[in-house]
Amino acid sequence: MTLVLSPEDAKAFIEKPFAFVERIGLRALVMEPRRVKLGLPLAGNANHIGSIYAGALFTVAELPGGALFLTSFDVERFYPVLKAMNIRFRRPALTDVTVEASLPEAEAARIAAEADANGKAEFILKTEIRDADDQVVAETEGVYQLRKTGA
Amino acid sequence: MTLVLSPEDAKAFIEKPFAFVERIGLRALVMEPRRVKLGLPLAGNANHIGSIYAGALFTVAELPGGALFLTSFDVERFYPVLKAMNIRFRRPALTDVTVEASLPEAEAARIAAEADANGKAEFILKTEIRDADDQVVAETEGVYQLRKTGA
Repeated sequence: MTLVLSPEDAKAFIEKPFAFVERIGLRALVMEPRRVKLGLPLAGNANHIGSIYAGALFTVAELPGGALFLTSFDVERFYPVLKAMNIRFRRPALTDVTVEASLPEAEAARIAAEADANGKAEFILKTEIRDADDQVVAETEGVYQLRKTGA
Repeated sequence: MTLVLSPEDAKAFIEKPFAFVERIGLRALVMEPRRVKLGLPLAGNANHIGSIYAGALFTVAELPGGALFLTSFDVERFYPVLKAMNIRFRRPALTDVTVEASLPEAEAARIAAEADANGKAEFILKTEIRDADDQVVAETEGVYQLRKTGA
């Protein structure tokens, strides 16, 4: 049996998976197979100088890995793990921000096949966090693993 | 005039600088000149599988840069900026965690002198986040700048 979540279910799972994420007011703007876009408000996430705090920017850039998992893979057979993340801060985030991430279809197929055969498969997601003027405020490179349940 | 905060004031500034940090229940365990130790509870920061969420681990590893600034530099003449952070996750954090960071005295003097002369000075902080059994759950390398106010 294959269980790939509906876009509505995936949206609910990514916006309120647990308290830490629920508190930051994350919005799942696009939740399509192999393509997601998330939004994060400045309100509630500002630091002492009025820009979005680094830890909130990290979070909105990390979550697309989980969001892509929810829309692209069999959530009963696999689960995702974050292994490492590199984030570079380019300019202060003075507005709400968004981040997009996608997986080419061939790459998603490679990941699922490899995790199925070996119990796990590594993949890299690069993102840009952009402000309301479409300026890049931060860039990330995340190393994720898709793991087979029970492997 | 030189304004270096008292340990008590520095503790208050790092535990509740703004809402995002206040929400995670951070504790400033040691706030000495050039040496700090911060604690983060599992409660309130767990993810969907019961370990501390990556974004909370990032936050507790990023804040020592600000904590060292508060205890080690003239807070009226300088301010700190995070430029980049690399975090590697080693094992799930299933307990409360702590993180320590320090700056050798010569390095702190180099940073202040360079920021004074050039308007900014870069420095690198490496940390290990440890669980209650003293196991490393994550390792980080942060690139910070100390900037001169008004430079």
